[in-house]
Amino acid sequence: MDTSLERLDAKARHLLFTGARTANSFADTPVTDAELTEIWDLAKWAPTSANSQPLRVVYVRPGPGRDRLVKHMNDGNRAKTESAPAVAILARDTSFHEHIPAVLPFRPELKDTFAANDAMRDATATFNATLQAGYFILAVRAHGLAAGPMSGFDPAGLDAEFFPDGRYRSILVVNIGHPGENPWFGRLPRLSHDDVVTWA
Amino acid sequence: MDTSLERLDAKARHLLFTGARTANSFADTPVTDAELTEIWDLAKWAPTSANSQPLRVVYVRPGPGRDRLVKHMNDGNRAKTESAPAVAILARDTSFHEHIPAVLPFRPELKDTFAANDAMRDATATFNATLQAGYFILAVRAHGLAAGPMSGFDPAGLDAEFFPDGRYRSILVVNIGHPGENPWFGRLPRLSHDDVVTWA
Repeated sequence: MDTSLERLDAKARHLLFTGARTANSFADTPVTDAELTEIWDLAKWAPTSANSQPLRVVYVRPGPGRDRLVKHMNDGNRAKTESAPAVAILARDTSFHEHIPAVLPFRPELKDTFAANDAMRDATATFNATLQAGYFILAVRAHGLAAGPMSGFDPAGLDAEFFPDGRYRSILVVNIGHPGENPWFGRLPRLSHDDVVTWA
Repeated sequence: MDTSLERLDAKARHLLFTGARTANSFADTPVTDAELTEIWDLAKWAPTSANSQPLRVVYVRPGPGRDRLVKHMNDGNRAKTESAPAVAILARDTSFHEHIPAVLPFRPELKDTFAANDAMRDATATFNATLQAGYFILAVRAHGLAAGPMSGFDPAGLDAEFFPDGRYRSILVVNIGHPGENPWFGRLPRLSHDDVVTWA
């Protein structure tokens, strides 16, 4: 069994990490349903604890759905969201454990463990859905599209609007599209290596 | 200004997402300090809200540091962690806002906003450090290495051991190395598209 792994080449590193930027404006170029479907079909493969996969995705298109979304965005994010050809609402499924027998077939009883422990269930949903949001942002970029992730919205209002039964809770809203005019600001500095990394 | 973006090719998609697997055993092949440094130097570029960058990384090597770590891992994770040539403790910096004037130079006053609002500061640290943990896992894979992320450890014990002043709080431990013998289990199922994605 060959288990040797390759390294990501410079072009791919540029596309996902070193050259990629958060877009603040979007072109009219459409984003297709197939592209949005493929973004999830790529992001879904990255790992979660207990294979829990608690992230849920609502793709919002221009029209009534987007109008319902925009009113819950902070003022500074409304124009950007209105200019994006597609927007993803990322949410955690507070009842993700219902799927445990299907996704963790060798340990189906973990469903009941989660059902009996609200704090553990909520911590697992929040942590792993957020990990998956990171994967999702890079998966958008992998499709030649710019992502515009935004934490600036009213989660209670958005959740009442889109998730009235309370099962899903929004964690991030991500504009998706091709970059428009002057799509990005000057690159902001990253912390120095020594501010982040230590050795033990 | 050319703002057109390319798509990630099949080889890179395989390396990061579709073909990558969580490793459960590691070969003796070393992982160099340069590789560990480069992993962070790639992951750091992916976005965080307000450019907050709250993730901190402690690279742990075989020896006394790893012995101090292994005793806080759950039983099922100890052998894996002992077999990895490098391990990363990922933590959130609860005082990440001290860096705001440096990383968000056009809005230095946000440092004081965070200082005055414990709930907002903690939510920002937790959410964004977790996003960055997702980027980190993919950055490990980008270097031709297998990642073994683990939530199964005693965070209170680990934090008392490695972060006694209380500023950093562990969120994830990630084994890093080249795959060993029989390094992965059969692939676990992913949720169906309709279980995850809806349209509005």
